Amino acid sequence: MGEPYVGARTPRREDARLLTGRGRYVGAVRLPGTVHAYVVRSPVAHGRLVGCDAKQAWAVEGVLDVITPSDAPDLRLPCVSLSPDQRMTSYRVLDDAVRYAGQPLAVVVARTPEAARDAAELVDLALDEFPAAVGAERAMEEGAPLLYPEWGTNVATDFTLGDADCASYVEAAEHVVEMTFTMGRVSPYPMEPRGVVAAYADDELTVHISSQAPHHVREHLAEAFGLSHDRVRVISRDTGGGFGGKEHVYPDEALVCLAAMRLGRPVSWSESPGDRLFATLPARAAVHRARLALDADGRFVALHADVLGDLGAHPSNVGASTFAVTATLLPGPYRFDRVAARVRGVVTTTTPTGSYRGFGQPEAALTRERLIDEAARRLGVDRVELRLRNMLGPDDLPYTTRVYQPYDSGDYPGALRALRDLVTPVEKDDGRRRGIGYSCHVESTGMGPSMDLKATAIQAGGYETVVLRMEQDASVVVSSGVVSIGQGIETALAQLAADRVGVPIERVRVALGDTAATPYSSIGSIASRSLAVGGGALTRAAERLRGRLVALAAHRLEASPDDLELAEGVVRVKGDPAASISLRDLATSAWRGWDLPEGVPPGLEERVSYDPAAYTFAYGAHAAAVAVDPETGAVEVERYWVVNDAGVLVNPAVVEGQIRGGVVQGIGMALTEEIVYTPEGQPITDYLLPTTREVPDIEVVMPQTPSPLTPGGMKGAGEAGTIGPPAAIANAVADALPEIAGRITDVPLTPDRIWSLLSAR
Amino acid sequence: MGEPYVGARTPRREDARLLTGRGRYVGAVRLPGTVHAYVVRSPVAHGRLVGCDAKQAWAVEGVLDVITPSDAPDLRLPCVSLSPDQRMTSYRVLDDAVRYAGQPLAVVVARTPEAARDAAELVDLALDEFPAAVGAERAMEEGAPLLYPEWGTNVATDFTLGDADCASYVEAAEHVVEMTFTMGRVSPYPMEPRGVVAAYADDELTVHISSQAPHHVREHLAEAFGLSHDRVRVISRDTGGGFGGKEHVYPDEALVCLAAMRLGRPVSWSESPGDRLFATLPARAAVHRARLALDADGRFVALHADVLGDLGAHPSNVGASTFAVTATLLPGPYRFDRVAARVRGVVTTTTPTGSYRGFGQPEAALTRERLIDEAARRLGVDRVELRLRNMLGPDDLPYTTRVYQPYDSGDYPGALRALRDLVTPVEKDDGRRRGIGYSCHVESTGMGPSMDLKATAIQAGGYETVVLRMEQDASVVVSSGVVSIGQGIETALAQLAADRVGVPIERVRVALGDTAATPYSSIGSIASRSLAVGGGALTRAAERLRGRLVALAAHRLEASPDDLELAEGVVRVKGDPAASISLRDLATSAWRGWDLPEGVPPGLEERVSYDPAAYTFAYGAHAAAVAVDPETGAVEVERYWVVNDAGVLVNPAVVEGQIRGGVVQGIGMALTEEIVYTPEGQPITDYLLPTTREVPDIEVVMPQTPSPLTPGGMKGAGEAGTIGPPAAIANAVADALPEIAGRITDVPLTPDRIWSLLSAR
Repeated sequence: MGEPYVGARTPRREDARLLTGRGRYVGAVRLPGTVHAYVVRSPVAHGRLVGCDAKQAWAVEGVLDVITPSDAPDLRLPCVSLSPDQRMTSYRVLDDAVRYAGQPLAVVVARTPEAARDAAELVDLALDEFPAAVGAERAMEEGAPLLYPEWGTNVATDFTLGDADCASYVEAAEHVVEMTFTMGRVSPYPMEPRGVVAAYADDELTVHISSQAPHHVREHLAEAFGLSHDRVRVISRDTGGGFGGKEHVYPDEALVCLAAMRLGRPVSWSESPGDRLFATLPARAAVHRARLALDADGRFVALHADVLGDLGAHPSNVGASTFAVTATLLPGPYRFDRVAARVRGVVTTTTPTGSYRGFGQPEAALTRERLIDEAARRLGVDRVELRLRNMLGPDDLPYTTRVYQPYDSGDYPGALRALRDLVTPVEKDDGRRRGIGYSCHVESTGMGPSMDLKATAIQAGGYETVVLRMEQDASVVVSSGVVSIGQGIETALAQLAADRVGVPIERVRVALGDTAATPYSSIGSIASRSLAVGGGALTRAAERLRGRLVALAAHRLEASPDDLELAEGVVRVKGDPAASISLRDLATSAWRGWDLPEGVPPGLEERVSYDPAAYTFAYGAHAAAVAVDPETGAVEVERYWVVNDAGVLVNPAVVEGQIRGGVVQGIGMALTEEIVYTPEGQPITDYLLPTTREVPDIEVVMPQTPSPLTPGGMKGAGEAGTIGPPAAIANAVADALPEIAGRITDVPLTPDRIWSLLSAR
Repeated sequence: MGEPYVGARTPRREDARLLTGRGRYVGAVRLPGTVHAYVVRSPVAHGRLVGCDAKQAWAVEGVLDVITPSDAPDLRLPCVSLSPDQRMTSYRVLDDAVRYAGQPLAVVVARTPEAARDAAELVDLALDEFPAAVGAERAMEEGAPLLYPEWGTNVATDFTLGDADCASYVEAAEHVVEMTFTMGRVSPYPMEPRGVVAAYADDELTVHISSQAPHHVREHLAEAFGLSHDRVRVISRDTGGGFGGKEHVYPDEALVCLAAMRLGRPVSWSESPGDRLFATLPARAAVHRARLALDADGRFVALHADVLGDLGAHPSNVGASTFAVTATLLPGPYRFDRVAARVRGVVTTTTPTGSYRGFGQPEAALTRERLIDEAARRLGVDRVELRLRNMLGPDDLPYTTRVYQPYDSGDYPGALRALRDLVTPVEKDDGRRRGIGYSCHVESTGMGPSMDLKATAIQAGGYETVVLRMEQDASVVVSSGVVSIGQGIETALAQLAADRVGVPIERVRVALGDTAATPYSSIGSIASRSLAVGGGALTRAAERLRGRLVALAAHRLEASPDDLELAEGVVRVKGDPAASISLRDLATSAWRGWDLPEGVPPGLEERVSYDPAAYTFAYGAHAAAVAVDPETGAVEVERYWVVNDAGVLVNPAVVEGQIRGGVVQGIGMALTEEIVYTPEGQPITDYLLPTTREVPDIEVVMPQTPSPLTPGGMKGAGEAGTIGPPAAIANAVADALPEIAGRITDVPLTPDRIWSLLSAR
């Protein structure tokens, strides 16, 4: 064998397809007889639909169906509930009670997209309008409009994690830094819009959908429509980015399936640019009132946060989970005597909030790391030194935090020291004020183990299964329930399989994204878990397959398995080059059922599930160098450094790309991106994604501390890049502008916001 | 639970689809951008293509490709070789050496079928023509044209099975009846023509094909094109009849795939009515010189046959196997001291011959049963009594014949006696002459075990694998490599699964016919094996799944598995109706990985292979009542009776339908169907399929002796009906016309043939 594939910067095998226009996206699905859906959405944020007159819509040439709330009174999708107290567990997909602008109220289906759209504009909606409640704080106010009057409140869920006596530790401490942070509502913004082509034929619903979790979509659709699970097939072959936004089944997607079932022909729909901000779940929207307590020596005593999360109109498919994850990752890489967080999920008359890369962790990092910087400033100590003084060292691990997270392995101080060595300030005399900011985090990756959500407060997860087959010609097929969402998982799994089985990577094919041809995955490609959990299963499957090949060869060669070695397409007796048998010969015999050892079944396929005992924890340290224009308040990130440890790296090039991409999204979150509503609940967003102009060179260093849990030692890496930037950049801005440092609490740090703070002094 | 499904006449679940035009045939496949192929065929039987000018064809509007032999010099398909002496093991798909009229010489691809056809007519073929050799006997003559001059003969294979001293037993016997039988060349004639839609994208060849054996097609195409097996997917969702004719990969089908690979777009092709007789493999064409030896008491001493099989232009995908099966099933249900058969496969300048329902067995039955009737006539004994006197009784079984067949179970004399009791002659005074004929047979079914063809002379077979999954909602999916070819296998597998797992049949789905979603099957739905082998695997898988459900319930209910019963969607503690758990609850936990016993992996899926230890032998006795018009020679079958034992019947209605259908094909073989060639090798066939006018009421009685081999006791039933009719009808004609009885040797017994025999006296 040549060099191992694991650890090599193997070119991504999906790129040839994706870069030459052969991506297998939903938009490329062509089914004969396909018709087109258009979703009619509420123009108001809060109210009641009292009439829906579709007569004029029906009159448009080519219109085939108009679906209104009365056509689907029982069609519901689930709200995930983490806590038994959550006030709702499902919602109506077409509801005449309106709770956000953009809520689907009807669907028009026509022979052409244009006819569907024209007809949709003729659907006459009669709406009684109610006052809006925008923002979690407003929705908590006395007298705020109630979205569900029967509750008597807008608080859908309210629970506390961690130490019950945390507040008393805070109050008794020498120093307490208290700040209130606001994280803007942002949108995961994948290049491929959401889209569905649904077909219903022969009592089977086939759904092509841009999704991170096709098996999950299958379950939810089957349950929503009362179909037998075996009658639903979901296909997501290439998904052009997900970032959490595509782990849900959306109401509009379910409605397209309903239309296909009603019409008996394929129905196509794709998210419009407007839908992205109206209808695709945004995330982050939260307010944290937080306190860091230190003793006289600058030792961290306690950390307490009051997390107020904006659920939007109803708990989504992830409910208040992101806010709960903020709480569980609040302590980061530091030791505290006490930690606690109260988490409240509040309904507001806005689009429901969901998942976004990082899933509560950028929010936790911003809160903790800004508090630490502010403490260092007030105490007059070096901010890096203050961090190192309170950090868990490598010898402290494994370590379970006060909020139940079993950190497994790593060298947190090592990462911060390495980062400090990298950082070089920008020196330029252009009238702008410059600063450096640091941020450290520990990241929950490799979501598992499998647990009954109903029975646990926080953790949920899931195993992964890999089916690994060697074909008769010794080619290898890996099939898994994780999905190719642009993250390079096809390449990484191929590298693992090639090394562990012992075949050239060109002989390995990776089959993903079709519930009819891949093993079950309850949650799919989310939570930085595809490689840690899916690759863990593959590692074990490959070990078994290799063992089976050697056993078959031992039988054929009449040798002991211990005397055999597998390399270069053959199994040979060590030291006897003449005594060998090719993998192709072994594989043909195995599949044909020829000449097998007694009791060995035919075939050459391993099906292995890996259910991690726990999450595995990656970590990182970020630093940003910024320049602030005091005249305009504009912030530029001039340099950015990342030290990130994601365990064993199967493909460092892929991980590095993931980290850079995540940092770019983090810069957007820190500086420009926000979905803004009027007090009436109308989004008035000019949504500014960072471009290459806003992004500096990003230096990435990747130490590798193997996970002691994952077979193969991998940890997750997909979300790492997004966690640090809001905190690092906010700290850098505070460093540049010490006169308003205590008030650098809210992201995005738009020019308007900075300029206002500077002007208010 | 209500009545068991196994044994019930459950309506066929595939019929709703097939009868309402929703069959998933190749003709229903619509892929965007599909273009159309037309195959240019040789107009001559023997010669050499010395030029192929496609200039004019290329000039036709819409033509996209013209493929000629020089474009595919290395594209070959295999000839199956049973005997190491066979002179060829593969053939060129596009060969400039022409050996039959209809041989593919070029392919034209165009945007429309019409353009392809028009252009095909403009391909200018320059052919040197050689003399033809039609019929195996002609091809054996001194000085006959040689198809492969390098062989020095047209005999491709020559081997002898059975007792080496058989001939000496024949020669020493008291009575010897010697006759020479000719079986006409007939065509399996399914309702759905052969057809392919092939697409090549993303380095993957996807082939929709009307096939009985998609996994087999996949292997052969992958090898032919040098593709990795994992890059070929074959889909055969509904196949509208196969009868053996669709167990091969045909040259025209491979060429359509080649066109798809060259063009990178889907290519469609369908067999034309002319192709059926030119290009689809016919079967049966054989001449048997056979001798039955009896002692003075009418005891069968020996049976010897010299089987001369017409292979056509080259050994096909089944080579000389049908002729070999004639030899191995020659003894039927009788005891002989010695049996032997010499088998020769001869190449002739006609379309290669292949498989057809019965696969050599109708030929064996005709030979043996006509000899017996003629012996009875000559010896002046009752033909039924002569049979019963020599028949193996139930206590003789298991019994291995002189030609190695391990008969397993049955009551052969019982079947014949039951048949005799059914038979009632037609009495009518219309100037026609009437007779009754009998035929008994033992039938090889449930093809297995798996053996290396290269290492054995005759038997080959294969295991089947079933993947049986219970979904989270307790619905059940059965997936198998056997194929739905109209034989009702979907219904039968659903019945088995419902009973053995313990769920209503409505909750069972059967998924077949897609190599990407079904387990490997090396040979598919041929040889009356789908239910015996596939159902055997399912029976075992269902037992395991049921056991696992009970074990999971025992864990959850804290009970002993022995105290539990599974019925009506729940597992309950016997005698304690309150202590129960639903299958849905168990299945959800199993898939989610929640609350499983230590060491039990998540999921609820069983993958079980069943490799039979041997074939399992069905048997039957047939009788026909005929009327012969002495003026015209026309034969009418007025009544027909069948006693057939196929072991445990999962669905008697389906089996009865299969038997009736087989008898109809047997009547065609006996009376009307034959592909006739001119001496120049041009087919001049008016191919007469029997219609309802030619088919009488058929009475079917079905005793059930379980197979001691198959889990579940099933034997094969798909071919049973075709085996008896040629022999029973020929015997009936001989009975009606004793004056020419000794010359009733050849089928079909056309009016012309009978009239000639009568006139020649």
